[in-house]
Amino acid sequence: MLLIDGKQTAATIKAEIKKEVEDIVARGGKRPHLAAILVGHDGGSETYVRNKVLACEACGFQNTLLRFEDDITEEVLLECVARLNSDDDVDGFIVQLPLPKHISEQKVIEAIDYRKDVDGFHPINVGRMSIGLPCYISATPKGILELLRRYEIPTSGKKCVILGRSNIVGKPMAQLMMQKQYGDATVTVCHSRSATLKEECLRADIIIAAIGQPAFLKADMVKEGAVVIDVGTTRVPDATKKSGFRLQGDVDFEHVAPRCSYITPVPGGVGPMTICMLMLNTLAAGKQLYYKR
Amino acid sequence: MLLIDGKQTAATIKAEIKKEVEDIVARGGKRPHLAAILVGHDGGSETYVRNKVLACEACGFQNTLLRFEDDITEEVLLECVARLNSDDDVDGFIVQLPLPKHISEQKVIEAIDYRKDVDGFHPINVGRMSIGLPCYISATPKGILELLRRYEIPTSGKKCVILGRSNIVGKPMAQLMMQKQYGDATVTVCHSRSATLKEECLRADIIIAAIGQPAFLKADMVKEGAVVIDVGTTRVPDATKKSGFRLQGDVDFEHVAPRCSYITPVPGGVGPMTICMLMLNTLAAGKQLYYKR
Repeated sequence: MLLIDGKQTAATIKAEIKKEVEDIVARGGKRPHLAAILVGHDGGSETYVRNKVLACEACGFQNTLLRFEDDITEEVLLECVARLNSDDDVDGFIVQLPLPKHISEQKVIEAIDYRKDVDGFHPINVGRMSIGLPCYISATPKGILELLRRYEIPTSGKKCVILGRSNIVGKPMAQLMMQKQYGDATVTVCHSRSATLKEECLRADIIIAAIGQPAFLKADMVKEGAVVIDVGTTRVPDATKKSGFRLQGDVDFEHVAPRCSYITPVPGGVGPMTICMLMLNTLAAGKQLYYKR
Repeated sequence: MLLIDGKQTAATIKAEIKKEVEDIVARGGKRPHLAAILVGHDGGSETYVRNKVLACEACGFQNTLLRFEDDITEEVLLECVARLNSDDDVDGFIVQLPLPKHISEQKVIEAIDYRKDVDGFHPINVGRMSIGLPCYISATPKGILELLRRYEIPTSGKKCVILGRSNIVGKPMAQLMMQKQYGDATVTVCHSRSATLKEECLRADIIIAAIGQPAFLKADMVKEGAVVIDVGTTRVPDATKKSGFRLQGDVDFEHVAPRCSYITPVPGGVGPMTICMLMLNTLAAGKQLYYKR
């Protein structure tokens, strides 16, 4: 069994990005600039945004954090999005989700210029990804593709089972894994209503668990030699931790790992790759790789 | 075994549309208006467009056909698209594909105002469909959903195997069949590179064949009682026909049909539904159901 080290892979990629950024700047090019909008004081969001700022610094990106209290109106937030859209210095930006209930997340996402939508959530990026055109691919599925690629795990023609059909992981993951240019795999998407979920998992060469249920995938659902990618990150109480909780994946790691050829741990697997993929998207935005502005 | 009659279903739907249109007009509303751009003289395209015009008439739609020779420049075609975008009287329009090689189909598709894109090919419609938002769904997958619904075929939790991963059938079909609000099924997409295609088919409750290979799906690949939807329409030589050819589906109908609970014939199954779904999308455009203009 080989552990897929997302932390190390992410560090390698960030070093590669930093090198490329310094080359760009040395040649007189523009340093990529990522902006982030953070509304309110949600603990998880604060952590994510702080980590994104740190990642920007590690990559040599310029970065701007715009903070608002959670009583901001949708109108004012949309004005801020419009300002960032038209700010030529900003190459890409994100609006950290979730937003307060009185603001429509979908409206805000669709207000972002898709050419700066480095989260890849705008319908144009979602649609272009689906039909195989160059675009920003959202961080989690992109990070998983990158792990599979860097660990040289064969996917073409393999049976890949995806657990979960969320808009940010399950669905895009399925679309990417089935495309010739990415996974080229035989893809099955299972979810809460699937009558044959266990059967599907047992026949899978690759399982990507993104169902949001701690330790959902058990050893008796995984065939010998399978590759298991764990996207779950549920906080479960843990008195031995200073924070009072630990992160638990969707995989019963202790019992599943011995059966696997490759497996990602939680934490330290998919998690560290996601912010790193946001950095890759920002680099692409800076280079105007997918879209000219 | 029950034959799914696409021709009859399409006729029923067109009658329903016609009734709704007459109600709208009687209440002083606007008669929906579909425009079609046809470039060149491809035999298949001529037939499709003629059938679309006839369907418009059957539904009581206003319709406009714009014809160009195949030496039209991309620029002139894009100007025509822009004119239709800004023509308030036109509710929806299509550009019949394929286009001559010197014109970028993708560029033309993306030039269409997504609010008038009744073919559902614009990335915004593709993306919105993927994430489950209201939008124009392209005709073939929409037609298949409609057949399943009208024949009250249960799909929730069932194993649905889709053969083929094209942008116009396989991919959107997969995205729709996995969503709670449409198929809610366990979806597997198989294609030319799938190592376990036969195994997947044998375990499927529903098979949607869109692989473009005549009589690809054989009786020994289908379990007893399965539902089989045949999207294939390959012209194969047939001396007994006046035209010299007949349409052959992706299913070896003669041998597969006896094993099925439901099956679509070719012709007369999915085919007649597609133009009918374009009519439903045009009605939706006329009513500004998904997008305000």
